[in-house]
Amino acid sequence: MRNAKSITFMFLALSLAWTNRIESQNGDRTADVRRALEDGGARNVLLFIGDGMGDSEITLARNYAVGAAGRLAMDSLPFTGEYTTYAVKEDAPEIPDYVTDSAASGTGWATGVKTSNGRISTSAKTDRNLKTILEIAQERGYRTGDITTAELTDATPAVLGAHVANRSCQGPSDMAACPQDRKSAGGLGSIAEQLIAHHVDVLLGGGASRFDQPTEGGPTVADAARIIGYQVVATASELEAAKAPVLGLFATGNMSLEWNGAEALPYPSNIANPQTCTESVRPANEPALAAMTTKAIALLDRPGTTAGFFLQVEGASIDKQSHAASPCTQIGETIAFDQAIRVGLEFARMHPRTLLIVTGDHGHAGQIVGMPNDTDHPSGLLSALRTKEGGTLVISYATNAYHRSQDHTGTEIRVAAMGPQAANVLGVINQTDLFSIMSRAIQEPVLFTEAR
Amino acid sequence: MRNAKSITFMFLALSLAWTNRIESQNGDRTADVRRALEDGGARNVLLFIGDGMGDSEITLARNYAVGAAGRLAMDSLPFTGEYTTYAVKEDAPEIPDYVTDSAASGTGWATGVKTSNGRISTSAKTDRNLKTILEIAQERGYRTGDITTAELTDATPAVLGAHVANRSCQGPSDMAACPQDRKSAGGLGSIAEQLIAHHVDVLLGGGASRFDQPTEGGPTVADAARIIGYQVVATASELEAAKAPVLGLFATGNMSLEWNGAEALPYPSNIANPQTCTESVRPANEPALAAMTTKAIALLDRPGTTAGFFLQVEGASIDKQSHAASPCTQIGETIAFDQAIRVGLEFARMHPRTLLIVTGDHGHAGQIVGMPNDTDHPSGLLSALRTKEGGTLVISYATNAYHRSQDHTGTEIRVAAMGPQAANVLGVINQTDLFSIMSRAIQEPVLFTEAR
Repeated sequence: MRNAKSITFMFLALSLAWTNRIESQNGDRTADVRRALEDGGARNVLLFIGDGMGDSEITLARNYAVGAAGRLAMDSLPFTGEYTTYAVKEDAPEIPDYVTDSAASGTGWATGVKTSNGRISTSAKTDRNLKTILEIAQERGYRTGDITTAELTDATPAVLGAHVANRSCQGPSDMAACPQDRKSAGGLGSIAEQLIAHHVDVLLGGGASRFDQPTEGGPTVADAARIIGYQVVATASELEAAKAPVLGLFATGNMSLEWNGAEALPYPSNIANPQTCTESVRPANEPALAAMTTKAIALLDRPGTTAGFFLQVEGASIDKQSHAASPCTQIGETIAFDQAIRVGLEFARMHPRTLLIVTGDHGHAGQIVGMPNDTDHPSGLLSALRTKEGGTLVISYATNAYHRSQDHTGTEIRVAAMGPQAANVLGVINQTDLFSIMSRAIQEPVLFTEAR
Repeated sequence: MRNAKSITFMFLALSLAWTNRIESQNGDRTADVRRALEDGGARNVLLFIGDGMGDSEITLARNYAVGAAGRLAMDSLPFTGEYTTYAVKEDAPEIPDYVTDSAASGTGWATGVKTSNGRISTSAKTDRNLKTILEIAQERGYRTGDITTAELTDATPAVLGAHVANRSCQGPSDMAACPQDRKSAGGLGSIAEQLIAHHVDVLLGGGASRFDQPTEGGPTVADAARIIGYQVVATASELEAAKAPVLGLFATGNMSLEWNGAEALPYPSNIANPQTCTESVRPANEPALAAMTTKAIALLDRPGTTAGFFLQVEGASIDKQSHAASPCTQIGETIAFDQAIRVGLEFARMHPRTLLIVTGDHGHAGQIVGMPNDTDHPSGLLSALRTKEGGTLVISYATNAYHRSQDHTGTEIRVAAMGPQAANVLGVINQTDLFSIMSRAIQEPVLFTEAR
């Protein structure tokens, strides 16, 4: 490494520049941007996926937690663009399906190929297995990690290390929708089995019940993991002591939520009495996403070796709590996701040649609206929140009826990045372009650019 | 000018690079981005404001008109960020109002100061007049233009050349909400009077009825304009022949819409029979926004002189048709706005040192949702559109009841730019930062950078 001290200094100076450009625009940042531009390859790739986290969801969380003029950790990335998230029709893949689910969306960023809703890294209509960025990273000698607050077999973590026709095929006993993917039919088996078979170095999340299912061969998936060398851990303290390869299963289903609060209700809801969210309700035996991220990086990063790592970190329940029209829990998950991003940013700022990307997989239902009254008010569910800066934040969920799952939306959403290749997120890109960007980052030679 | 031929060549090469990076991400654009970075000042500033045009509205128009993988002219700008649009409370300006109107929003980008909803370049609570970017541009010797498809006295064009306590004070007879701004009370008069008094070189839009009102001094505002040298034109053909200073008033109120179509209705609406929009319904005697933009640039740009120009172009009825829950007319206005942007882009690509910015002023109600059914469907108004690429695009408006005005939303929205200072829109910025960026662009020395 050439002139490591001055490189570190420049990094610190650069991160300071970004960190300080908060409330206002006091000076021209063109030179900072020029310095932040990096060609070449990435030693490490950190991909943060906020499930269902579009611009509306980010604004909601920012307004509530740090104020409208405040900045989240994710707001500090130097390069930003918007990307399109649409899926395609199963029977006519040349026609878009304008609202994606997390499976098709994930397949898009993980493989570079658009597919139909419900599919996990398989092609629409033709059911071909599509090579994933995690598989390419492994071929290039990168260590890999895949972590989530949902079940590990849920769509977003699944798209990196599994190929099945339907996202429901999470464990060996869940294969009804994917008969051709059963091992007995010559397939690769369930998502849980495939994640293990990929030898992903770090797998952390919920979904223990999927791994407790017996495989067609006999042992449970978790036991099959142990047989090939995985350490299986179930609590935050076990995780702290764990070594790779590790399979962390911290909940039977989805992991517990970070915050609590009242769900949105039909008008007038709590408009007259805005709520304050209850924070820090996660049980102590379940690790926070930030703690999982810290541990994953510690297990994957091996200073002194040439090979780096690829790590995906999903904030999964932003989506699930949007579906439930529950603003406090949705915001709590967004903030917890942001804390995980902060861990990644600290690593990236100290470790040159790290490509860090923060994005979502689709927009969601929640909209920030004005103060409603009897004459003029949204037609769906509402909740008013008293923000920390003393404002009143009103959220509307109206893409489905009361106590029915709120729908995703098809809006373009923010993609932000720093590090090698990061400038390629600028402008309007397609979700599949994210695959190309990451793929190029891990296939280019890893060099220090002149700016460094 | 140094080596003008090679500069022109580089511009053409650069615009080609951006134009061609459409459907996919085939190569690293880092070097293109580096070349597009420009320090220093801008000879010309072109500001395009899509009223109510957030990321959802852009995606809607793109999906319908050019396909989900297609690209609008506005999608081709190299630098993109998201900006926060919130207003502040009139009685407590330290507290945000999380959903802005166009008046407070416009005051934010035009003056750099957050104000309360309804105010036109005056401060919340203290009612101070706030200096605008157009006023600064005039002081620096820039020619100026302000054009819109709404009334010229509507909020967005008003914030550049007027200071009143309330946006309703559009003509001399409309001053009920602004007694202190009446000329007889020592004020600056109505918005219409102030726009004229500012000697803005090019004023084009609707709102003739405001200018036909008699001033307190006697003549109508239009006649007062003639007295100080304005040519007043009323049709597209009169505009073609016009010279500056020009006041074009092409409609009594808002200008006519570009497209037509059915409004959104409660479920099941037209889900079983998606509509196709009727295009090109604008009367021929009213100029398109693109034609107004072409003419404005022709009047403002004087090659061979040192002074450049500042021009604001508003696509106003994206907002108004979103309020009306009318997807076809909303999309038609977005596409017409995009055609105006294309005019600006062509100018900027051929004229170095032009800062071109495209953004909105706040998000709006429309959401792209999945195919609804009797069990699961949005709670508000819906419309299904058959897109040009053969897909079915379903739009939900649910921020107010049927036939009540749909509400703005508080989401962060896209800001895109090219030219000097453009890189300062990257990341997450505040709407007021746009003022700083434009202000710096017109106060920095105008130089050719090394990259040129």
